[in-house]
Amino acid sequence: MLESLVQKNDSKILLIVLDGIGGLPVINGKTELELAKTPNLDSLAKNSALGLHIPVDYGITPGSGPGHLGIFGYDPLEYEIGRGILEALGLGLCVEDTDIAIRGNYATVEKSDGKLIIKDRRAGRIPTEENRRITQRLSEAIKEIDGVKVFFSAGMEHRIALLLRFPNPLPEGSDRIKDTDPQKEGLEPIRPVGLTEASERVAKVVQKLLEKVEEVLRDEPKANYILLRGFSQKPRMESFEKRFGLKACAIAVYPMYRGLASLVGMDLINFEGQSIEDQIKALREVWQEYDFFFLHIKKTDSYGEDGNYQGKVKVIEEFDRYLPSILELKPKVLVITGDHSTPSILKGHSWHPVPVLLHSPYVLGGTSERFTERECLKGELGIFPAKKLINLMLAHSLRLAKYGA
Amino acid sequence: MLESLVQKNDSKILLIVLDGIGGLPVINGKTELELAKTPNLDSLAKNSALGLHIPVDYGITPGSGPGHLGIFGYDPLEYEIGRGILEALGLGLCVEDTDIAIRGNYATVEKSDGKLIIKDRRAGRIPTEENRRITQRLSEAIKEIDGVKVFFSAGMEHRIALLLRFPNPLPEGSDRIKDTDPQKEGLEPIRPVGLTEASERVAKVVQKLLEKVEEVLRDEPKANYILLRGFSQKPRMESFEKRFGLKACAIAVYPMYRGLASLVGMDLINFEGQSIEDQIKALREVWQEYDFFFLHIKKTDSYGEDGNYQGKVKVIEEFDRYLPSILELKPKVLVITGDHSTPSILKGHSWHPVPVLLHSPYVLGGTSERFTERECLKGELGIFPAKKLINLMLAHSLRLAKYGA
Repeated sequence: MLESLVQKNDSKILLIVLDGIGGLPVINGKTELELAKTPNLDSLAKNSALGLHIPVDYGITPGSGPGHLGIFGYDPLEYEIGRGILEALGLGLCVEDTDIAIRGNYATVEKSDGKLIIKDRRAGRIPTEENRRITQRLSEAIKEIDGVKVFFSAGMEHRIALLLRFPNPLPEGSDRIKDTDPQKEGLEPIRPVGLTEASERVAKVVQKLLEKVEEVLRDEPKANYILLRGFSQKPRMESFEKRFGLKACAIAVYPMYRGLASLVGMDLINFEGQSIEDQIKALREVWQEYDFFFLHIKKTDSYGEDGNYQGKVKVIEEFDRYLPSILELKPKVLVITGDHSTPSILKGHSWHPVPVLLHSPYVLGGTSERFTERECLKGELGIFPAKKLINLMLAHSLRLAKYGA
Repeated sequence: MLESLVQKNDSKILLIVLDGIGGLPVINGKTELELAKTPNLDSLAKNSALGLHIPVDYGITPGSGPGHLGIFGYDPLEYEIGRGILEALGLGLCVEDTDIAIRGNYATVEKSDGKLIIKDRRAGRIPTEENRRITQRLSEAIKEIDGVKVFFSAGMEHRIALLLRFPNPLPEGSDRIKDTDPQKEGLEPIRPVGLTEASERVAKVVQKLLEKVEEVLRDEPKANYILLRGFSQKPRMESFEKRFGLKACAIAVYPMYRGLASLVGMDLINFEGQSIEDQIKALREVWQEYDFFFLHIKKTDSYGEDGNYQGKVKVIEEFDRYLPSILELKPKVLVITGDHSTPSILKGHSWHPVPVLLHSPYVLGGTSERFTERECLKGELGIFPAKKLINLMLAHSLRLAKYGA
């Protein structure tokens, strides 16, 4: 229904994601947002619509994939992002519609009686440097199998991502291939088997690829094979522009979030540097070219995951210092939120609702003093499903026509 | 989706249901919870997550069945508990998968021209004592019909519950049998007719049973027949343990609530006495043996139904006095709520959202001063569907894995 009401205008919407922003009391009964000194956010909060979003469902802790899909307006229970796709995106591979993405481990195998036997599923956790060298060898030696392009990308230690790019669209279910990793040493790798006709076609390419890999890595002392898991296709998603009528771009540093933005068809902005300041500079440079801007700030989550609440507080305070320069751009709608909560006391993502601030000329405001979990509870947006945030952003930019007469 | 994320650990979850706890202003603008002096609940509320649940839907007043199914995590619109089942549970009959449960009325009939004519649909509302004597007669005379075991249980006045226990599983729809009570005197009882093939098989057994009943009760002056209504099968529900990975038990005094707990496969704890103190003693005794404990306190509802607000206030205050001894058990997650509201001014169940208190190490807290309807509105849980309470209990006991990567 929403899509049928979308109308265009020249307003600008800026969505700032402070990754993992939500928290819990960590010291003196205060959360990270409550501990941070944020004069600019405080003043904005007083004149904004506040609330909290539930990323997936009550009590459900989302990964980064579902967390972002929700705030992009795609139901995270409807669109599932496979492990292979996420790994590929995280390592900076650009995933296309005709791709099969796969997670891999370098492994040590030994031939005995004509059989390959797994000696070490992680090839002795080779150093990342070593991984890069070997992955480079593979990339040079294997570029194509039966007309299917092959891409490799080195991860940390023994981890690797692979993409098989087919020349033509793949039917749904082409990724239904059993992992080749038997999860145990002393066994043979499992032959790639497709569980459907479409995936069996893919599995045959994978089998040939593995034979080629074995040949190329024969002389490697440790990483002489690859075990594969998480075969997956890109979820079929209508692009952000087609769905919501918004020409959108992403200003993000980390490959995973750039990848998630590219999944919904946002343009990825390239820029120098990695700081918040660098990101705002990039934002300013492309401000005239788009309707919708997704600005992703990662460090709030990283410090939360480390249990380093002071670090998280500092990133929040750093962001606060740059807020005035963001406001100078005068977006019609500014949203500040997170993709999920990452309370320092839990050292990980959590299920807790995520603070949302929405600033536009059409808010009630005056409900709350600050942008914190507890102050957001008093706000006019209440507690709502993340996937409805897009409705609010479109409405506040006057991009939704009336429903019914 | 929830079920696929469930993981086990050794945390304990305690769900305390104060039946019909929610109320409305009854004197001086205060509700029963607001009138009660509850120092222990007040202090717990300050450090807990508060909110209100909607048992079934906005504006819908639930019976005890739907009210409990919701907070047990079973959608009350998906799982319907038939009237016969509820009556049987309420009278302490243990319902099995192969049972057909039926509500009955003792009635007075007269034979005229070879026809049975109903003279009094309630057999002159015979005293309960009289009912027990007659039901005892039936129980002794009729134990089986064509290999189907028959159980009778006396209710109040003319009311009775019956169970037909078939030797083998029954197909769904076996309970689709028309009531035999024509709802009017001067008519013949309706012959039991099955609306499907499966239920016709059951109807034939019912017909034979009724002939037997007529024979046995022939010499009774008033209660010489039974009219039957609400034929029902036990709803097909996955057990609580299978669904949520929780070994669960129920500590409840009244048969109805013990029955509802047994429907989802909770173990029923037997104990001496009926007081809150007795219940807590029983709880303590089985504390090491289970993951999940359902403690049901009935009297809040009974007084509400009588319109006796002082009585309801007193039960709340009594519960408050025992709260410290409950907290000594140190459950990882403690939830205090009701299955529905029973405002004294309505003298019955109502549709109003029900206060919820959730205590765990992972709450925000600090939002509210007391456990009352108005203070719960300020809480971090918001107003949410009852069936989502299980998500929150599982999440706060760290029994849910992350969704997506």
